[in-house]
Amino acid sequence: MSKKGKNGSRRRAQQRRRFDQTIHPHTRPGTIIVPPEALPPLLQITAYGPEQIVEKRNATVAQIVELRGKYPVVWIDAIGLGDAALIEQLGKTLGLHHLSLEDMATVPQRSKVEDFPHHLFAVTQIPTYNGDLCLEQVSLFAGKGFVLSWREHAGHCFDIVRKRLQVTGGTTRSAGVDYLLYALIDAVIDSYFPVLEQLGEVFDELDDRVEADSSPECIAQMRDIRHDVRQLRRVIWPLRDAIDDLIRSPPEQITQETLIHFRDCHDHTVQIMDTLENYRDAGSDLRDYYATAISNRMNETIKVLTIISTIFMPLSFIAGVYGMNFEAAESAEWGWDMPELRWKYGYPFALGLMALVAAGQLWFFRRRGWIGKGKQREREAKEK
Amino acid sequence: MSKKGKNGSRRRAQQRRRFDQTIHPHTRPGTIIVPPEALPPLLQITAYGPEQIVEKRNATVAQIVELRGKYPVVWIDAIGLGDAALIEQLGKTLGLHHLSLEDMATVPQRSKVEDFPHHLFAVTQIPTYNGDLCLEQVSLFAGKGFVLSWREHAGHCFDIVRKRLQVTGGTTRSAGVDYLLYALIDAVIDSYFPVLEQLGEVFDELDDRVEADSSPECIAQMRDIRHDVRQLRRVIWPLRDAIDDLIRSPPEQITQETLIHFRDCHDHTVQIMDTLENYRDAGSDLRDYYATAISNRMNETIKVLTIISTIFMPLSFIAGVYGMNFEAAESAEWGWDMPELRWKYGYPFALGLMALVAAGQLWFFRRRGWIGKGKQREREAKEK
Amino acid sequence: MSKKGKNGSRRRAQQRRRFDQTIHPHTRPGTIIVPPEALPPLLQITAYGPEQIVEKRNATVAQIVELRGKYPVVWIDAIGLGDAALIEQLGKTLGLHHLSLEDMATVPQRSKVEDFPHHLFAVTQIPTYNGDLCLEQVSLFAGKGFVLSWREHAGHCFDIVRKRLQVTGGTTRSAGVDYLLYALIDAVIDSYFPVLEQLGEVFDELDDRVEADSSPECIAQMRDIRHDVRQLRRVIWPLRDAIDDLIRSPPEQITQETLIHFRDCHDHTVQIMDTLENYRDAGSDLRDYYATAISNRMNETIKVLTIISTIFMPLSFIAGVYGMNFEAAESAEWGWDMPELRWKYGYPFALGLMALVAAGQLWFFRRRGWIGKGKQREREAKEK
Amino acid sequence: MSKKGKNGSRRRAQQRRRFDQTIHPHTRPGTIIVPPEALPPLLQITAYGPEQIVEKRNATVAQIVELRGKYPVVWIDAIGLGDAALIEQLGKTLGLHHLSLEDMATVPQRSKVEDFPHHLFAVTQIPTYNGDLCLEQVSLFAGKGFVLSWREHAGHCFDIVRKRLQVTGGTTRSAGVDYLLYALIDAVIDSYFPVLEQLGEVFDELDDRVEADSSPECIAQMRDIRHDVRQLRRVIWPLRDAIDDLIRSPPEQITQETLIHFRDCHDHTVQIMDTLENYRDAGSDLRDYYATAISNRMNETIKVLTIISTIFMPLSFIAGVYGMNFEAAESAEWGWDMPELRWKYGYPFALGLMALVAAGQLWFFRRRGWIGKGKQREREAKEK
Amino acid sequence: MSKKGKNGSRRRAQQRRRFDQTIHPHTRPGTIIVPPEALPPLLQITAYGPEQIVEKRNATVAQIVELRGKYPVVWIDAIGLGDAALIEQLGKTLGLHHLSLEDMATVPQRSKVEDFPHHLFAVTQIPTYNGDLCLEQVSLFAGKGFVLSWREHAGHCFDIVRKRLQVTGGTTRSAGVDYLLYALIDAVIDSYFPVLEQLGEVFDELDDRVEADSSPECIAQMRDIRHDVRQLRRVIWPLRDAIDDLIRSPPEQITQETLIHFRDCHDHTVQIMDTLENYRDAGSDLRDYYATAISNRMNETIKVLTIISTIFMPLSFIAGVYGMNFEAAESAEWGWDMPELRWKYGYPFALGLMALVAAGQLWFFRRRGWIGKGKQREREAKEK
Repeated sequence: MSKKGKNGSRRRAQQRRRFDQTIHPHTRPGTIIVPPEALPPLLQITAYGPEQIVEKRNATVAQIVELRGKYPVVWIDAIGLGDAALIEQLGKTLGLHHLSLEDMATVPQRSKVEDFPHHLFAVTQIPTYNGDLCLEQVSLFAGKGFVLSWREHAGHCFDIVRKRLQVTGGTTRSAGVDYLLYALIDAVIDSYFPVLEQLGEVFDELDDRVEADSSPECIAQMRDIRHDVRQLRRVIWPLRDAIDDLIRSPPEQITQETLIHFRDCHDHTVQIMDTLENYRDAGSDLRDYYATAISNRMNETIKVLTIISTIFMPLSFIAGVYGMNFEAAESAEWGWDMPELRWKYGYPFALGLMALVAAGQLWFFRRRGWIGKGKQREREAKEK
Repeated sequence: MSKKGKNGSRRRAQQRRRFDQTIHPHTRPGTIIVPPEALPPLLQITAYGPEQIVEKRNATVAQIVELRGKYPVVWIDAIGLGDAALIEQLGKTLGLHHLSLEDMATVPQRSKVEDFPHHLFAVTQIPTYNGDLCLEQVSLFAGKGFVLSWREHAGHCFDIVRKRLQVTGGTTRSAGVDYLLYALIDAVIDSYFPVLEQLGEVFDELDDRVEADSSPECIAQMRDIRHDVRQLRRVIWPLRDAIDDLIRSPPEQITQETLIHFRDCHDHTVQIMDTLENYRDAGSDLRDYYATAISNRMNETIKVLTIISTIFMPLSFIAGVYGMNFEAAESAEWGWDMPELRWKYGYPFALGLMALVAAGQLWFFRRRGWIGKGKQREREAKEK
Repeated sequence: MSKKGKNGSRRRAQQRRRFDQTIHPHTRPGTIIVPPEALPPLLQITAYGPEQIVEKRNATVAQIVELRGKYPVVWIDAIGLGDAALIEQLGKTLGLHHLSLEDMATVPQRSKVEDFPHHLFAVTQIPTYNGDLCLEQVSLFAGKGFVLSWREHAGHCFDIVRKRLQVTGGTTRSAGVDYLLYALIDAVIDSYFPVLEQLGEVFDELDDRVEADSSPECIAQMRDIRHDVRQLRRVIWPLRDAIDDLIRSPPEQITQETLIHFRDCHDHTVQIMDTLENYRDAGSDLRDYYATAISNRMNETIKVLTIISTIFMPLSFIAGVYGMNFEAAESAEWGWDMPELRWKYGYPFALGLMALVAAGQLWFFRRRGWIGKGKQREREAKEK
Repeated sequence: MSKKGKNGSRRRAQQRRRFDQTIHPHTRPGTIIVPPEALPPLLQITAYGPEQIVEKRNATVAQIVELRGKYPVVWIDAIGLGDAALIEQLGKTLGLHHLSLEDMATVPQRSKVEDFPHHLFAVTQIPTYNGDLCLEQVSLFAGKGFVLSWREHAGHCFDIVRKRLQVTGGTTRSAGVDYLLYALIDAVIDSYFPVLEQLGEVFDELDDRVEADSSPECIAQMRDIRHDVRQLRRVIWPLRDAIDDLIRSPPEQITQETLIHFRDCHDHTVQIMDTLENYRDAGSDLRDYYATAISNRMNETIKVLTIISTIFMPLSFIAGVYGMNFEAAESAEWGWDMPELRWKYGYPFALGLMALVAAGQLWFFRRRGWIGKGKQREREAKEK
Repeated sequence: MSKKGKNGSRRRAQQRRRFDQTIHPHTRPGTIIVPPEALPPLLQITAYGPEQIVEKRNATVAQIVELRGKYPVVWIDAIGLGDAALIEQLGKTLGLHHLSLEDMATVPQRSKVEDFPHHLFAVTQIPTYNGDLCLEQVSLFAGKGFVLSWREHAGHCFDIVRKRLQVTGGTTRSAGVDYLLYALIDAVIDSYFPVLEQLGEVFDELDDRVEADSSPECIAQMRDIRHDVRQLRRVIWPLRDAIDDLIRSPPEQITQETLIHFRDCHDHTVQIMDTLENYRDAGSDLRDYYATAISNRMNETIKVLTIISTIFMPLSFIAGVYGMNFEAAESAEWGWDMPELRWKYGYPFALGLMALVAAGQLWFFRRRGWIGKGKQREREAKEK
C-alpha cells in the first residue's frame, strides 16, 4: 500500500477510535472524565444588553457571577475540555445538570438538543476539512441570562456572531438568550457549507482522475471521501431531527420570532442532507465508474494479446511448415517432398502468403472494430 | 477523457457548485445578497378584473402601487435577481417577510410553500433541457390583491397563463389571487413534462447504443442522465410534499374550488415522480446492461484468442517435430531416425495430419457453440 | 442488436412515451383533449332492476336519459375515447365533474378512486400480455342510479359481469349501483391474474434458457420482463392504496355489505403485489445468474486456452531444441554437439519425452479438476 | 442444466404456479371452487369439557350437531379440501361466512386473521421441508363452542394439541375455545422451527461447498434456498402482522389470559422473521462468496497460463534462433554466420542460456508470490 | 478451505444453531426446559439499604426469603441455567410469571423489556469477543424489594455495580430497586463498547491486509466480521426499542429520576447502533475493495502475459522465417532463395531486426503505461 493509502487507513482507524472508545464503560454515571489530550480551558465572556457590551478574555468564574447580575445576556465562550474541576465548578455556578456536563466532556456525542429543568443543552460537531475531515465537538447551554458554549479547540466559527454583537442596535444585541443560542447554532451549521464545497472539489478531481488512474491511491481516496460523506451524514441527521423536535415542541425560553429563525436553521440542515445525498450517489457512481474502467482496461489488454497472437501464430506456423525437413529423394521426383522449397519463387511465395494472412487478420480485426476505429471515431468527433 | 466527457464532468461540477455554494455562510440572517451573475430585474405588470385587463412592460414600483388600488388582482412578473435594493423596496411595498425575500435571492432553494403572516411564499425550480439539465429558480408571493412571481431568466413558462388572462370571461380572469397562484404553479409543473420527454429520448438513444458502444462518451452520458434524473427527483420530491401540505391544511386565502385544482397539481407531481422512478430504474438497467455488454465482449475476445491458439499451437508443434534434425545414420537403418521424413508421401501426410487436427478442433468448437452458432441462430431467427 | 431486441427497446420507448407525453402542458385545465389515435366511442347500455333487464347496443345519450327514470340501475359501458363532444355531453347529462372527465380522457392516469360531489370516480388500467405488456385505461363513474364505465378498446374483461347480470335473482341484479361498481373493479383486478400467470411462464422459460444462452435476445427479454413487472407494480400499488382508502373512509353510496366485498378486492391487490414482489426477486436472481453464467463460461474458455497452451508450449519447445543446427565438428567428438540427434533411438526418445511431458500436464490438470471431473461428476450423478 | 437444477427450476415453477393460478378470475364472488387435486375431506371430532373428552374419527356433520350441545368445546379437525358440498353444508351448520369458506378453499391464501360477525377466521400455511419447501394451507374458524381446523393434507402438526387435550385437568382442557385456537396457531408456528433448522443445515453445507465447487447444481441450490427463505418470509410476515393486530384490538371471544399467550406467539413469529433475515443475509453472502470464488479461480487459471507462456516463449525463441539457417560461407570467416553453432560448447551454452532464463522467470514469479507461496503458507499454517 | 476458514464456518453454523434450535416445538407452553449444556446455578445475594450491606455467596432460596424482610433491596445474582427445579422454586418464592421464567431458560431470546403484573422482566445478551463473538443471555427481574439477575456463565460484567454498592452513601446504595435495575442494564450496555473496539481493530487489520492478500482466510475473516456486526445489530436493535418503550410509557416502579438515567442508556444504545452502521458500511467497503483488488491483480497478470507474448511472438516468427529451408538452386541465382541467409551480415541483421522489434514493443508498452510507470510513479511519490 502506498504511503498515502496507509495514512488514509490509519486516519480512518483513528476516527473510528475517536467515535468508539471515549465512552468509558464501568464508570459511575455522572462522572466527568475529560478526554486524555484535551487542552486546558480558556474562558471568554461577552456580556451585553441593548446598550452596553463588555468583553473579557481569560475570564474567571468569579467574573461570570459578577457580570450575570449586571447584563441581560452573558455569553461564556469556553475553549478546551482539559479541566474537570473547572467544568464542575462552572456547572454548579450556572445550575447545569450533571448529565449534560458529562455529555459535554465525552467526545464525541451524537448531535442532540435536550431540555433540562433549568437550561437547554445542545451538542453537535463543527467540521473542518483539509484533506482529512475533522470533527470538533461543541456544547451549548442556554439558561436564565446566560449562554455557555464549550468547544474542544479554538476556531473561527463564532467570530461572525461576536462581530454582529458589536453592532449597537442590531437584532442580535437587542434580542435575548434564545436568539444568541440560535445565532451560535446557525454559525455551527454555516460552518458545514465550506466543507461541503471542499468535498465537492475533491469529487471533481476524482471524477477527472478515475478513468485513467487505477492506482491504489485513487481507490483509497475514493474510500476516504465516501467515508467522510457518511461521517457528515451521521452528524447532520440527528441534528436535523433535534432542531425539528425543537420547532415542533419549543421550550418556553424560545420566543415565536426566534422560532421562525430556527425554521431557517432546519431548512439549512435539510439542504446539507440533500447535498450529502448527492455526494453519496456521486461516490457510488465513482465506484461503479472505476470498476467499469478496470474492466475496460482489461478488455483492451486482452485485445492486444489476441491481436498479436492471432496475427503471429499463423505466420509462425507457415514458417514452421517450410522449416520441415522432408527430403525423401524418391518422392522428390513426384513433387511430393515440399516442392515449394524448390520453386523458383518459393521464398517470395511464402512471404506473400504470410503478408496475405496478416492482412486478412488485420481486415478482420478492423471490421470487428478492435483496431483503427478509435482513430476513426476521433476523426468523426472532430468533424462534428 | 473525450471532450464531451470532460464537459460533462465540468458541467456536473458547476451544478454541484450551484447547489452548494450560494448560501453565504457568516452573514447576518435576513441580508439579501443577490447571486453574483444575476441579471438586472425587469418588471411586467398585468392588472385585471373580470372586465378589464392592463399590461405594463418595464414597470416601476410606483405603477404597482397605483394599479393595486384599481384592479382586484395585480400580477407582477419580475425577471432577474440582480438588484438587491429593488427587491427590498418591492418587499416593503407589498409587505413581504424579510426571510422570504432572502430565500428568493438565494439560489438554489429547496422547493417549498410557506405561509407567512401576510402572504404565501412558494419557491421551486423551472427545468430546461438541451443536452444539459438547467434549473432556474422561481419564487411566488401571493398576498392581498397581488401575486409576485420572480424568475432568474426570461422564459416561456408563463406565456400560457398570460394568454389565458386575455380571454374575457375565462375562469382565470374572474377568479382571484389564489387561482392565479395555482395557474402559475401549474405552469411550472407542466414545464417538467417536455423535459421528461427529452430525457426519455436520450434513454432510448442510449438503449440502442449501449450494446455496441463502450466508448467513454457512452459511460459519461449514462452518468449524466442518471445525475439529471436524480437532480429532478430532488426538486420534485419536496414540491410534491409542499403541495400535499397545502392541500391538507390550506391557508385561508385559498378557496375550496381552487383547492380541487391544487389536488390536480399534486397528481401531476406524483406522476412526474413515477416517471422519474421509471427513469431511475432504466438508468440502473442501462448500467447493468453496459457491464454485461463489456463482459460479453471480453468473452468474445478471449474466445477468438482461444480458438486461434488452440488451432495453431498443435499445428506449429507438428511442423516443429518435422523440423527436428535427427539424422543418426545408424538408426536410419532401423527406421528410427524420423522415417516420415523419408516417406514417399511424408509431406502430404504431415499436411494431412495438420488438416485433421485443425478440423477436429473446429468440430470441437462448433459443438461447444463457440463458432458458427451465431450464423445458425440468425438463420433460425429469419425462419421465425 | 437483434431484431427482437430492437423491437423490445422500441416497445419500451413507446410505453415510456405513452406514460409521459399525454399530459399536454400549456392547456387550460378542464379541457378535454382526446388521445390522437383514440377510437370513436360506442355506448352499450344495460338497465336493470331485480326483475327486469334491458340491453341496448350502439345506444345514444337520449336513450340513457330515458332508461334512467325506469330502472334502478343503468350501466353505460362505453368503448373508445375518440369523441370529445360526446364525452362532454354525457358528462353534462350525468352531472359528472369536469376534472374527472379530463382525467378519463388523459391516458394514462395513475390508478385512483376519487369522491366528487355527485359521483365516485375510479380510474385504473386493464392489462393484457401477449409477449408485450399492454395497459388499457378504464374509468368508472358511479352516481345516483347509474354506473358509467369507459374503456379505450373493446375487451372481454366485463363479460363476466354482464353474464352474471342475466341471472334473475342473482346478487348482482338485486344489489344497487355500489355493488355493480364493485363487480366491475373486481373484474378489472381479476384480469391481472392471467397476465401474472403468463409472466410466470416467461420466467420459467428464461430460467431454463439463461444458463446456456448468452445471446442479446436473452438479455433483452430479461430486461423486458423486469420492465413489465415494474410497470404492473406502478399500476397496482396506487390501486391498492386507493381501495384501502375507500375501505377506511367509505363514501356514503357504499353499503356495509359491499364494503366487505371491497375488502376482498383489497386482498386480491395485496396478493398481486406479493406475486409481483416475487417476480421482481426472480428478475434480480435471473440477472445475477446470467452474470454468473457469463463468468463461468469465460472461466471455461480460459481453461481451454490454458490447457492447450500449457500442453503444447513445452512440446514445441522440445521440438525447437532438436531443430537447432549445432554441428561443430570439433565438439562432435566430445559429444557436445547435440548428441541426441545422433543417438540410435534419438527420435523415439524425443517423442517419448514429449509424451511424458504431455501426460504430466494432463495429470496435473486432472488433479486440479480442470478436466475429466465433469464426466466423473456426471457418472456420480447417474449412480445416485 | 443438470437434472437436479432442472428439477429445481421446475419445482420453482410449480410453486409459482401454485401461488398465482388458484384464484379463478371471472367467477361470481362467493363461489366455492375446490382445488383440482384436493383430497376428499375426512372429519375428526374432539369434543371436550374439563371432565370428559370424546373423539370421533370419520365423523359426519350430524355428529357435530349432536356433540355441540353436549360439550363446551367441539374441535372439528378436517383434512382434505375436495368436497365443495360438504364445505357449504358445514359452513351453513356452523354459521360461517361465505367469503371465509371461499378463502379457505382457495389455495394459497395470504396469512390473515379476520373477525367475521359470528366467528374468527384465521388462515396460514404449515411448512415442511425435505429438500424442497412445501407449504400446506390451514384454515381455522373459531365460533361459539366450536373450533374448525381445515388442512389440505394429513400431518403431525396438531398431534401435540391432541395429546395435551387428553390430560384431564390440564390448562388446555379446562380453558375455552379461544385457548384451543391459540394452541392450534401455536402448533402451526412451532412447525416452522424444524424447517428453519433444516434450512440452516443446508446453508452450512453450501458454506462448505461453495469455495471448491462451481457446478451448476451448487448455483441452483443457492437459488433454491434463497427462494425458500423468501417464500417463508412472505408467509410469516403477514402472519406476524395479523397476530399483532389481534393483540392490539382483541375480539371479545379472547380472554385476557389467552391474550398473553398470543403475545408469546407474536414473539415466536418475530424470532422466525429474525432467523429468516439472518438466512437472507447468509444467502447474499454466499452469492458474493461464490462470485469471489469464481474470480479467484479465474485468476489462478490465468496465472498458470501466464507462467507457462512466460517461461516457454523465451526458451522457444532461443531454440528458434539456433534453428536459423545462416550459412554464408564468406561471413563464416568473419565469424558472423552464427558462430555459436560452431562453438565447441555451443549446445551446452544454448541449454545453459535457456536454463538461466527459466530460472530467472521462476525467481520473478516467486518474488511476485505467484508460485511457491501457497505451499509456504500451508507450512506456516501447519506450524501454527 | 483452510483450517481457520473451516473453523469460521463451523462457528457460524454453531451460532446459527444456537439462534434457531432452542425453542423446542411441541411442548406445552409454560414448561421450563433448561438448555442441554447449562451449568448448575450458583446464587449470590447482595442485600443492602442506605446504611448496611450484606453479601452471601452460594446462597440458598431460604436465605433470600430471610433477607427480603430485613433489607430494602435484595439483589440475587444467579449464574448458570442448569437446574429447572431451582428456577421454578425461585420463581414461586419471588412471584415471577411462568412465561418470563420460560423465556429466561430459553436461549437465545430477543432483547425485550416486559411489564408483568408483579414484576418487570428484561432479557438481553452480554457480548464477549476474542476472535469469535460470543453472546451470553442475561435476564433481569425487578419486583418489590428484589432484583434477580440470571446469567448463563460467570463474567465481570456486573463487578462494577457490586463495587459501587460497597460505597456507603453512594447513589446506588441509597436508591431503590429501579436504580439497581438501571445500573445492571447500564453495565450490560457498557459491555458492548470494548467489543466494538475490538471489532474496530479487526477492521483496521483487514483494511491493511485486503489489498495484498487474497487468501481464503482473508475472505473468511471478512465474512465473519460482517456476520458478527449483523449479529450485534440484531441484539441491540430490539434492546434500543425496548428501552425507548420503557421511557415513553414507564411502569410505575420507575421513578422520574431513574428515567433520566434510562434516557442515557437509550443514548448509548443509539450510539452503539451508529457504530455498528459504520462497521456495516466499512464491511461493504472492504468487500468492494477486495473485489477491486482481485480485478486489479488479474489485470496485472494478463498484462504480464500480453507483454511477454507480444514481445516474443514476433521474435520467434523472425527466427522461424530464417529457419525455412528454401534452397532452390535455380532461384539462388536470382537472389530469390532467402538471400539474407547468404548475406555477409545476415545473422547480425536478423538479430538486429529482433532487437528493433523488441525495443519497439517495449516503447509501445511504456507509452501505454503498462511498464515502467509504476517505478516512475514511485519516484514521483518520493519527490513529493
